[in-house]
Amino acid sequence: MYDPSASDSVGIVTPRNEAFEESLALASGQSIAGFSLRFETYGELNAERSNALLICHALSGDHHAAGYHSESDRKPGWWDSAIGPGKPFDTNRFFIVCPNNLGGCKGSTGPASVNPATGLNYGPDFPIVTVRDWVKSQKMLMERLGIQRWAAVIGGSLGGMQALQWSIDYPDLLDHALVIAAAPRLSAQNIGFNEVARQAILSDPDFHGGRFYERDVVPRRGLMLARMLGHITYLSDDAMRAKFGRELREGRINYSFDVEFQVESYLRYQGVSFVDRFDANTYLLMTKALDYFDPAAEAGGDLAEALRATRCEFFLAAFTSDWRFSPARSREIVKALTEAGRKVTYAEVEASQGHDAFLMPITYYFEVLRAYMERVARGVGV
Amino acid sequence: MYDPSASDSVGIVTPRNEAFEESLALASGQSIAGFSLRFETYGELNAERSNALLICHALSGDHHAAGYHSESDRKPGWWDSAIGPGKPFDTNRFFIVCPNNLGGCKGSTGPASVNPATGLNYGPDFPIVTVRDWVKSQKMLMERLGIQRWAAVIGGSLGGMQALQWSIDYPDLLDHALVIAAAPRLSAQNIGFNEVARQAILSDPDFHGGRFYERDVVPRRGLMLARMLGHITYLSDDAMRAKFGRELREGRINYSFDVEFQVESYLRYQGVSFVDRFDANTYLLMTKALDYFDPAAEAGGDLAEALRATRCEFFLAAFTSDWRFSPARSREIVKALTEAGRKVTYAEVEASQGHDAFLMPITYYFEVLRAYMERVARGVGV
Repeated sequence: MYDPSASDSVGIVTPRNEAFEESLALASGQSIAGFSLRFETYGELNAERSNALLICHALSGDHHAAGYHSESDRKPGWWDSAIGPGKPFDTNRFFIVCPNNLGGCKGSTGPASVNPATGLNYGPDFPIVTVRDWVKSQKMLMERLGIQRWAAVIGGSLGGMQALQWSIDYPDLLDHALVIAAAPRLSAQNIGFNEVARQAILSDPDFHGGRFYERDVVPRRGLMLARMLGHITYLSDDAMRAKFGRELREGRINYSFDVEFQVESYLRYQGVSFVDRFDANTYLLMTKALDYFDPAAEAGGDLAEALRATRCEFFLAAFTSDWRFSPARSREIVKALTEAGRKVTYAEVEASQGHDAFLMPITYYFEVLRAYMERVARGVGV
Repeated sequence: MYDPSASDSVGIVTPRNEAFEESLALASGQSIAGFSLRFETYGELNAERSNALLICHALSGDHHAAGYHSESDRKPGWWDSAIGPGKPFDTNRFFIVCPNNLGGCKGSTGPASVNPATGLNYGPDFPIVTVRDWVKSQKMLMERLGIQRWAAVIGGSLGGMQALQWSIDYPDLLDHALVIAAAPRLSAQNIGFNEVARQAILSDPDFHGGRFYERDVVPRRGLMLARMLGHITYLSDDAMRAKFGRELREGRINYSFDVEFQVESYLRYQGVSFVDRFDANTYLLMTKALDYFDPAAEAGGDLAEALRATRCEFFLAAFTSDWRFSPARSREIVKALTEAGRKVTYAEVEASQGHDAFLMPITYYFEVLRAYMERVARGVGV
């Protein structure tokens, strides 16, 4: 709940938009002719324009990373625990930019936007975008905002992949990359889960090949299933045990297919509420961007070789109970960066919360984040 | 492929049926008035009737555990690697019984059977059955076959849970229980995956509340999704990496939602082919039986206390890469059995295949199985 007296909150924030008329060439070979990005900023850009941080969001995230949109808002932005005055990403020192990704559904141009060429929603005509495309569009936003260099590019999960791609594609435009709870590429198991989620959406009769907008329906079932499945992979087995165990919602077994265990109730609630706030075509695009991310592929599978182009310093963090992108996956990146001669700080955080841990104010995690951001701040004299 | 010269195969087998007129009272409080069980047998019951083994199947298994149904059969039964002359479950020494579970879809009475009270398929009117109910029905089959005692009751996964339940419910009717790749109860994560699978089926517009038989449709999408998801949990991350890695089916990225990675192709194939051989209502029932299984619950949550009633000896095996029912879950059972004063043999098998490993002829696993079955054989003088 919004509290006007909270001294560590960025308070009420208003999203901004920037429209780009120019055509953006995408990795797929397609291009998108004109698009806009919605984003939020927190803190102030200093006179030297040296204190800017870019925060990249994950699969179901958006530009609303901190603060509240109104006084009646019940929940703050998705990384409010880390962003604000005196917090690890300290808005007293840094100017923070967080855009909604191209292809998203929270204000940036995406499948639910109207295609100027047809007057209808893009739907399936929206091109498939990659992590590299996002980074390219974020670079355009950067220029528009008059930022010459990021003090750091930061992200967790799919956001961490964007931070890593920044370090490769624009090595001279960032001092630091913070790559949290990420992986250098998806495993077959990761792709498998994404594929089940996609098939749930694609096979929903209300999906209509992605042109459901015109029919005024939503592939609710598919999107619900995708989100339920996602949630299981975001939590650790232990976290689910601690949170739900085998607790029965009504205290007894009813021998029916209604909700019996608390975990069923939680997952159904997460699935149902997601449908009202997310677009099915965007979900498909985000999972594809995850599947395709593989910076080593362009260097013959040699991640260290791919990372030799980088110039910034790196911070990586992983969480012991994260089985979606386990610490072993982060260690692959650390090893490759070390081979490439880069400076790397790596924190393996003891945490029971699974992949979701990256969003939580875990003491040791926030301590190392603070310490690292102190270094980032010193580097740009703020 | 059937090979008449294979000396270690049970060869061509013919399923049998036994019909039971009596009403079976179920754990749910409901009862089923008359049912039949389909089963196969391998080997010969000896004159002392002492050499009978019961093999219990897992979620999508059936009574066809070994051999071929015809000379043109391309695949043998699901546990053919372990059952046959000279194999761990040696048909030269043992008489093996393997029934299709009540509620199944391969010949035993289940949701796709005709309800004599209505003349229509049971569908959703088929009562929810539990592991205990299955054991009870298997006991009726045992009596019908003139078997007074099992030399061993054996099963993997959900089959292992049935073996454990046998040891509790009929302690004097078995010498040994072989509980392989099982768990004493499902975790919240396990239940979560089952719930996603169930929601996929229940929300499929072709499910029609379970009465799809009369409409001549099948909830293909839901059953396909359930199976795809199941397959991910049966394989280890490593096994999927070894089997598929990030291999592209056409060698290049196509930027589309068609199959791109080999793992997608595999999962879709598994999903689609399952639809033709499994019943959606049975799938729902099987997952519920898994969720409900919790023998400790009746002893105030104390598994050792629940197992104090048992009399047989136990063999447990678990597989290092199995993350569905990890070795830690088997060790919970071993610990409780030890506390209850039972004799337990436990093998933790180094294996990369995940949960599916229990079906595979892994050298160390089969060696310990053979050694244990030698003891079972000596106990009954065969």
